[in-house]
Amino acid sequence: MDRETLANIKTLALDMINEANSGHPGIVLSASPIIYTLYKYHLNINPINPNWYNRDRFIMSSGHGSALLYATLFMCGYDLTLDDLKKFRSINSKTPGHPEYNVTPGVECTTGPLGEGIATAVGIALGEKILKERAKLNNKKSIIDFNTYVLVSDGDLMEGISYEACSLAGTLKLNNLIILYDSNNMSLDGTTDNTFKEAVKDRFEALGFDTFKVSDGNSIKQLNLEITKAKRSKKPAFIEIKTHLGYGSKLQDTKEVHGTPLTKEDLFQLKKKLSIPNEPFYVDEDKKQDLISFIANRVGDKYNNFVNLYNVEIKSNLDTKYKDIKFFFEDETYGISNINWKNTNTKSLRNINKYVMNMISKNIPSFIGGSADVSSSTKTYIDDSSDIVYKNYKGKNIHYGVREQASSAISNGLALLNFRPFISTFLAFSDYLKPGIRMSALMNLPVTYIFTHDSIAIGKDGPTHEPVEQLTALRDIPNLCVYRPVDLKETIGSYQSILSHNNPSALIISRGNTNSINSTSATNTQKGGYVVREVDNYIATLVASGTDLITALKISYALEKSNINVRVVSMPSLDIFLKQTKEYKESILKDKKIIVIEASTALHYTKITDYNNIINIESFGTSASSEDVLEYANFDIASIYKKVYNLIKK
Amino acid sequence: MDRETLANIKTLALDMINEANSGHPGIVLSASPIIYTLYKYHLNINPINPNWYNRDRFIMSSGHGSALLYATLFMCGYDLTLDDLKKFRSINSKTPGHPEYNVTPGVECTTGPLGEGIATAVGIALGEKILKERAKLNNKKSIIDFNTYVLVSDGDLMEGISYEACSLAGTLKLNNLIILYDSNNMSLDGTTDNTFKEAVKDRFEALGFDTFKVSDGNSIKQLNLEITKAKRSKKPAFIEIKTHLGYGSKLQDTKEVHGTPLTKEDLFQLKKKLSIPNEPFYVDEDKKQDLISFIANRVGDKYNNFVNLYNVEIKSNLDTKYKDIKFFFEDETYGISNINWKNTNTKSLRNINKYVMNMISKNIPSFIGGSADVSSSTKTYIDDSSDIVYKNYKGKNIHYGVREQASSAISNGLALLNFRPFISTFLAFSDYLKPGIRMSALMNLPVTYIFTHDSIAIGKDGPTHEPVEQLTALRDIPNLCVYRPVDLKETIGSYQSILSHNNPSALIISRGNTNSINSTSATNTQKGGYVVREVDNYIATLVASGTDLITALKISYALEKSNINVRVVSMPSLDIFLKQTKEYKESILKDKKIIVIEASTALHYTKITDYNNIINIESFGTSASSEDVLEYANFDIASIYKKVYNLIKK
Repeated sequence: MDRETLANIKTLALDMINEANSGHPGIVLSASPIIYTLYKYHLNINPINPNWYNRDRFIMSSGHGSALLYATLFMCGYDLTLDDLKKFRSINSKTPGHPEYNVTPGVECTTGPLGEGIATAVGIALGEKILKERAKLNNKKSIIDFNTYVLVSDGDLMEGISYEACSLAGTLKLNNLIILYDSNNMSLDGTTDNTFKEAVKDRFEALGFDTFKVSDGNSIKQLNLEITKAKRSKKPAFIEIKTHLGYGSKLQDTKEVHGTPLTKEDLFQLKKKLSIPNEPFYVDEDKKQDLISFIANRVGDKYNNFVNLYNVEIKSNLDTKYKDIKFFFEDETYGISNINWKNTNTKSLRNINKYVMNMISKNIPSFIGGSADVSSSTKTYIDDSSDIVYKNYKGKNIHYGVREQASSAISNGLALLNFRPFISTFLAFSDYLKPGIRMSALMNLPVTYIFTHDSIAIGKDGPTHEPVEQLTALRDIPNLCVYRPVDLKETIGSYQSILSHNNPSALIISRGNTNSINSTSATNTQKGGYVVREVDNYIATLVASGTDLITALKISYALEKSNINVRVVSMPSLDIFLKQTKEYKESILKDKKIIVIEASTALHYTKITDYNNIINIESFGTSASSEDVLEYANFDIASIYKKVYNLIKK
Repeated sequence: MDRETLANIKTLALDMINEANSGHPGIVLSASPIIYTLYKYHLNINPINPNWYNRDRFIMSSGHGSALLYATLFMCGYDLTLDDLKKFRSINSKTPGHPEYNVTPGVECTTGPLGEGIATAVGIALGEKILKERAKLNNKKSIIDFNTYVLVSDGDLMEGISYEACSLAGTLKLNNLIILYDSNNMSLDGTTDNTFKEAVKDRFEALGFDTFKVSDGNSIKQLNLEITKAKRSKKPAFIEIKTHLGYGSKLQDTKEVHGTPLTKEDLFQLKKKLSIPNEPFYVDEDKKQDLISFIANRVGDKYNNFVNLYNVEIKSNLDTKYKDIKFFFEDETYGISNINWKNTNTKSLRNINKYVMNMISKNIPSFIGGSADVSSSTKTYIDDSSDIVYKNYKGKNIHYGVREQASSAISNGLALLNFRPFISTFLAFSDYLKPGIRMSALMNLPVTYIFTHDSIAIGKDGPTHEPVEQLTALRDIPNLCVYRPVDLKETIGSYQSILSHNNPSALIISRGNTNSINSTSATNTQKGGYVVREVDNYIATLVASGTDLITALKISYALEKSNINVRVVSMPSLDIFLKQTKEYKESILKDKKIIVIEASTALHYTKITDYNNIINIESFGTSASSEDVLEYANFDIASIYKKVYNLIKK
């Protein structure tokens, strides 16, 4: 029976690819036995309630296998019609070219860029460990208990991000993670003999995984055996499964079968071999129903037990200690409006940010995170909590190690479980997180990226550590909201805004000291931009954010001495400001010349003024004291004053 | 004697850090015996001629050890004065905060962002293998024969890019690469027990390295023994060297000693322990001279033999077969002006680009490169050459595997040996190369980044594969020149421009078909922008690049039917155009309204027109046919026509 159902999944996926005249048949024919075995015999899922919180997660890291995934979900009874499958890769369909989160029921995460999926899976596995601790009932048994499975290709494993994430998974002994390696010695450009000769299984042993091998990827018996062993492992599990790319096709084991639809003839002979009628999108309804009921019977009790346990022990339980748990299951939102903020006696914005983060963490249990080995410097540590380490997943502080790339994808995994994760490093290194930030933006996950050391003013470490173009690169990512506060009030306001939406955010924190400005305001910060210095008979408006705002104010006062009146607008978030009403924006910017001061390429301000009115930095910094670097870049206060003066006199 | 000289190097480096009141003493005290042993007993170098082509290369991947490197170079007799050391981390010094290429004699490569150095070292090692093949004399002995050594920290090894590069080094069996691992179980945030518990040595075994271990990193005897073995290895070598961070300091083995200058007291007791007089920047001149002559004696013959061999066999030899070799030694430049270009019968710009690349490769032997496993799709293959694989380094085609990050750093390594490397992948994945591209730009290395699939028009693969913000992100990198040609002539012109300067370049190639435009020109392309359609009584100018230029021309003709005349300017490189004279720029843009059309966020055009005159795309695409995606983004020809019309009528 397995044989027929599996055959039907294969042909459905292949028909989808031929109908779309685009897609990847190779992986359909190599990995379908793996996916089928996993869904039928192992995954604890409920296709009728695909968002059941305690379900096992399956991530297809090799996202180009989407057709295989959709065909499998269809046969398992997820809310997908044959018509949905026929619309594969076409506009507004539930079956896009690569799996997309929130588009297809049963798809846990957007994948496609190789390596991102496996790193996100590590984040989900880590999140399960943390929640399991929190969701313990009085009898100490936790109501949370699920595994994360991920299918990876040779390409996924060549990507550095997958190494970073797996090295951390091994260190944290995430034995709820099971990696299924579709090992077929082929990648887009051909055999991996010239590109990937390492002993992959040994490498994973070295990373702290238990490793397993399936010599025949078409043997459901072998697959069941090894997956069963892997589930019992005390370490994360890695199963190398030897398969053949495009198994059964005339092009089997060639690179040509990777990304091009099969010819009519090839598809015909294949269907014949699989004894599937040669009609497009043939479905054996009986086999489909059999599969659906098989899974229902296998998972039924576990599902019902969870629902009962949750309703009896938690949902109806008013004991506040369960409030935190409900949060994750019912998206019960927490506010920070009730926080009674105190003044901090520090001029270091990094320490101010730390204070704000710690207050938020007291009020929002899901606010957890860490840094890529620079928390001593970014100061993003939650003091009243412990470190998340092997054997103690109770804490809120994650030590990512020097793994910027993985930190973003792992944060995405945490966000997929309803955490509100944060991750910090230096702004200059935000480049390493960019691919993961883009995934946060594509999935619209509320990850907060905290980037400190925000300009060339960091000085002595030199140009490799001095951000110039990074702020612009971040503002350029669709769906990402960028904030750059100047003091405590604006930092509070930034978080109030960040926590009010589900978009990912980037919070830029200067390294240098700052001053609290009387006229700043947390409430106004939530509008993105507002006036901090209003003057009569002004002839221009200075716009700035972060420490540049202090410069703008100094210059405004200095110009006043020469009887030149300029207003000053603080712009902690240009993204948020641009979303305000036309009236509000006009009331802030007014009609006179708008001059922007920012220690970055600052291009996005052309949305509110002319490029020539932007005083910015467009070349690399140098290694020297903060003052010398700013002078080197003609960004010292005297140079900026001159530039502003000349712009006004124009 | 070793003991005293080593002690002096330690105290010099520590004095530099204290003088600058900034730097990293931890690595000075952990790694100095390694560096000292390497320079004194193993590196084939000539401090008097630091650019001797056949020298061994040493890369300090953990660039925060710069003080140690400078102090060592000083003691070895490189052109560094005590005054240079005193200016550590200060403006215009030869001793910046992190090692910088072209700033300090003896510094081979800019490092600082962890992982980049080791990946660049792999590129240098690969380059040596390729050149060694090419530089064989009649007796089949090659005049090229050097090793590349790299010092790495735990941080370097946690970075994904280092894994990517080492996996490829193992696959290609680069036995001229020797990695020295400063293994001290400490990183910035503290012990690696919570972040990096993998069996690093075993991991490198799995990657195809021969591995060695030095149990006492302070034992010069042990270090010599293992380095000597490593040099004989048939595979790349990895030496794990157990050290103590901040060895000898009161803060030894704590994270505090990583990045903060030692206290006066600590430095005092340390100098006492090392029996170095307690005076800042003390130098034992005798020991320095001893070290200099020791190295001179050790390397002298090898150096002289090389010089003689080169002068006799190659320099004075007019045999053309040595022309290629001279190129690398004497920066003899090759032109492509003599190429007789033919028309191609293809509408695919990727194939047009392939034709141009193949013609260039015939004329420029140093023009080599590859793709991150998508050359079948980016079409950047050099047909008349073979693949570079283990045991055959003769070819010009490098198979990077799915390792975008490492491909950029490895290309930087090749460029450091005077290659003109290219590397290709899809534009959407340029994010993964960004950190390496920034290093190319910082070092000003002529790497050509070829990015195909240049807009959301790629369609069916969906938003993960559809670039939106990437073009802007690339244009935002200082020193990088971005090109986006529309047809054969502009592609030729782009390469003529790329090969005329030493900046890194990004060449953007559309996936869709294109048409050759009569009025395009290779010569004009080298000016960045020029008129492709001049009309009388025009009321606006349309500016576009790549396939968007075809749209701009269509719209210009369509508007003509409604008696609206608009000129059309092709802008294959905004970067190059902005470098032209004021007069030229004005002659191209003229005085009327400038409207830009580009399928990206396109912000940089605000340097030539108002933001509101830019017709661009600022949100993610979707998975559908090319036509449907463009319509979805209101970027189909009808929508653009409407937008242009409204802008003109404003």
